[in-house]
Amino acid sequence: MLVNNMRVITGIKDMRSVSKEARMSGKTVGLVPTMGFLHEGHLSLIRAAAGECGFVAVSVFVNPTQFGEGEDLESYPRDLERDTGLAEEAGADVVFAPGVEEMYPDGAGTVVHAPPGLTGVLCGRSRPGHFTGVATVVLKLFNIVAPDRAYFGRKDAQQCAVVKRMVRDLDVPVEIKVMPVVREKDGLAMSSRNTYLSPEGRSTARAVHKALRKAEEMVCSGILSADEVKAGMYKILNKAEGLEVEYIEIVDPETMEARSDAGANALIAVAARVGGTRLIDNILVSSEQWMVSDRRRGVGNDE
Amino acid sequence: MLVNNMRVITGIKDMRSVSKEARMSGKTVGLVPTMGFLHEGHLSLIRAAAGECGFVAVSVFVNPTQFGEGEDLESYPRDLERDTGLAEEAGADVVFAPGVEEMYPDGAGTVVHAPPGLTGVLCGRSRPGHFTGVATVVLKLFNIVAPDRAYFGRKDAQQCAVVKRMVRDLDVPVEIKVMPVVREKDGLAMSSRNTYLSPEGRSTARAVHKALRKAEEMVCSGILSADEVKAGMYKILNKAEGLEVEYIEIVDPETMEARSDAGANALIAVAARVGGTRLIDNILVSSEQWMVSDRRRGVGNDE
Repeated sequence: MLVNNMRVITGIKDMRSVSKEARMSGKTVGLVPTMGFLHEGHLSLIRAAAGECGFVAVSVFVNPTQFGEGEDLESYPRDLERDTGLAEEAGADVVFAPGVEEMYPDGAGTVVHAPPGLTGVLCGRSRPGHFTGVATVVLKLFNIVAPDRAYFGRKDAQQCAVVKRMVRDLDVPVEIKVMPVVREKDGLAMSSRNTYLSPEGRSTARAVHKALRKAEEMVCSGILSADEVKAGMYKILNKAEGLEVEYIEIVDPETMEARSDAGANALIAVAARVGGTRLIDNILVSSEQWMVSDRRRGVGNDE
Repeated sequence: MLVNNMRVITGIKDMRSVSKEARMSGKTVGLVPTMGFLHEGHLSLIRAAAGECGFVAVSVFVNPTQFGEGEDLESYPRDLERDTGLAEEAGADVVFAPGVEEMYPDGAGTVVHAPPGLTGVLCGRSRPGHFTGVATVVLKLFNIVAPDRAYFGRKDAQQCAVVKRMVRDLDVPVEIKVMPVVREKDGLAMSSRNTYLSPEGRSTARAVHKALRKAEEMVCSGILSADEVKAGMYKILNKAEGLEVEYIEIVDPETMEARSDAGANALIAVAARVGGTRLIDNILVSSEQWMVSDRRRGVGNDE
């Protein structure tokens, strides 16, 4: 099927053979797994893949098993036609957009569990089962596309940790590339869910990035106590009317274990709700001199 | 490393590259996963693989995660030198014998769960966690060796069902071949654990196959009620002194769901203990005319 001149594959067998053909012709295969409704964050992943791989597949699949009860599975934004155009522009070779029945025939029941220490904290606390859904569908996509490299955005830092851990623990032959958070001009991390925000909500949501900027300032000025940094962030977020903090955590980015300091290589992560919309964002303290790796000066996507 | 002229690989990276080399040279790759201490059952799998694949890897790994507390992990028989000789004779190209640290560095924690309906019954009832250990290590081996085909013995019928289900649910690109049970002349199913049996125990153990023969007779004579067939089997097993039945089940071989009849395609499975030794065995009723697919006349491995 062609949409916008982009080849869209819906069958697992077809995807396998197209990917195999690319591999057989000597091309490196890159995969960018997405739930569609592509934004600049996704496109940065596709561009990175296109720069490194001879063949790039972008999967577009709103995976039901990673949504909990009462979450936004039904309302999650979908627009395959728009996605194919954007994916093509960014350098994708095919879009893999299977239906739910293709991915989960007879409600397929085998699942992949990353260690509870990794999945039971941060987002996992309010979204039980979410990371099992993520790990399972990502492994399926890896088995179908057999990519040499797969690209994920660090906005979903816990997801990245789960996927990297799964790949290591299960010896999956794929290299995981974690790419920087891409933000709107005012600092809001790009997310398909941002479309849910009302104009007021959109304005309120800026506080999330402001709090992370505050953390950055504190760390750069030498304040490394996790408690102090969190307190500084809470001060900003608590002032934002209509915003409810779900968590502020300072953790190891590989293990998701809480740290008592915000020094080198600490992940400072926030989840908050604005109206009905759940927003997450994070910054990673650099391993050198406590510089924050994705500091941002409000001038667009300059990472 | 060469043992008995057989190339023995202990590192995951080495195994990957040897297997890749075979694949690149156009060979079909076959994998026979074992826990070593090879017997005629394993060898029949290796021979089948060698007949169909240009390159055959036999893994020898006593997987700790599929043993429960109080089980025989420490005492499980091991003899790599003997195994390499037997594997070579049967047509293997390499033996993959990784250490526990190589397979589970830092106690790697990601696991694969097949559906509870499949793993919570039969052997899974007395061995909680066993099939999670099996599914996880088998997926790891698949990811390391990347075989086109993998060979399993139907003696471990539930294991076969779990592996097939995992492969289907997770889209693992491998074909699973399930091969018939291989038995001693008197009908005892081959097992590395048979070495645990005392001479008296060895004699008592014959009752397991006798009970399955009884089931076969009943089915062939048209008695298809699962309850009646089980009662006939219990009669034989209860007479065997020193033998304790763990279960007799008549189930669907794919789903492990109990059936009320022992008709076409029913799996009739037994687990029993003789002394400290746990024995399992089964027969599969043919899909045609209720013939038992591996009927056996006590004349060796004529399947």
